Amino acid sequence: MEFSIRTANVDDCKDIARMVMELAEYEKVSEHVKVTQRDLEQDGFSKNPFFHAIVAEVPDQHKTKDGHMKIGYALYFFSYSSWKGRALFMEDLYVMPEFRGKGIGKALMSKVAQLGLAAGCSLMDFTVLDWNKSSVDFYLSQGCHDVTNTMGYHLMRCEGEALQKLAQP
Amino acid sequence: MEFSIRTANVDDCKDIARMVMELAEYEKVSEHVKVTQRDLEQDGFSKNPFFHAIVAEVPDQHKTKDGHMKIGYALYFFSYSSWKGRALFMEDLYVMPEFRGKGIGKALMSKVAQLGLAAGCSLMDFTVLDWNKSSVDFYLSQGCHDVTNTMGYHLMRCEGEALQKLAQP
Repeated sequence: MEFSIRTANVDDCKDIARMVMELAEYEKVSEHVKVTQRDLEQDGFSKNPFFHAIVAEVPDQHKTKDGHMKIGYALYFFSYSSWKGRALFMEDLYVMPEFRGKGIGKALMSKVAQLGLAAGCSLMDFTVLDWNKSSVDFYLSQGCHDVTNTMGYHLMRCEGEALQKLAQP
Repeated sequence: MEFSIRTANVDDCKDIARMVMELAEYEKVSEHVKVTQRDLEQDGFSKNPFFHAIVAEVPDQHKTKDGHMKIGYALYFFSYSSWKGRALFMEDLYVMPEFRGKGIGKALMSKVAQLGLAAGCSLMDFTVLDWNKSSVDFYLSQGCHDVTNTMGYHLMRCEGEALQKLAQP
């Protein structure tokens, strides 16, 4: 199927917000989503953006029954490894279910990797849910490795009241 | 013990590079460290830095036998959660062994939390090695939670030849 991938602009935030919610529903955590279209507009498309995004589009004749032509996205930001230097963190990679299996996810991920290499990054990190076997298998097939399994790294989080309390001297 | 915490500047990179190596030796992965003092200077202290850092210092009378007064650091960067918005990733938190148990690590982490809240971040992520029980216990005591255990998130990585290959269209 014909599709194209391009850098996202502020006008894509409505569709990105829709797909962020679809992805959270797929991951069974939609109640955790607090981010709005307006947050994405402000945080990703002002000076010193907190993230970058790319979108996948299909031509008009392949649009969904709801009229969507933007059918996938990846969201990433630059990170840093104190061992290996400049790095990229791919926060989200999503393709709408009816467009899966056509190489669109691979193409999105490939584009993120290109952008990272162009910026001097030597590695790309991301997370995956351990029960999401199709995603895990896809990533492993692309030569990625599971740093939690191989090295014992666990992801930790501090948020809400705990973060407020931690910040008190 | 008296100590102070401040934002790092380019002149701290020599000590940060030293402590990055000490931390990697503690984590038994020093052979993975490719980052040099010069990389830190370029990547952290030019326009659009890839990371930010803070350092802990002790006064002259408490310096180490090797003459070090900079005895801890935290390295972090801004990240983004597509569910919760602006976020912070604490890449490293380190205090030299002889200065542990004095609240310096807690003070460094508290400062990172303050800086994150001031920038509108609602959460702070970081990783910990599952065999590093004293660190895991410390983080849990601060109200952090283990997202790998509770939600099943695994950290994945693509690097080297795999990243080059992925980037080919």
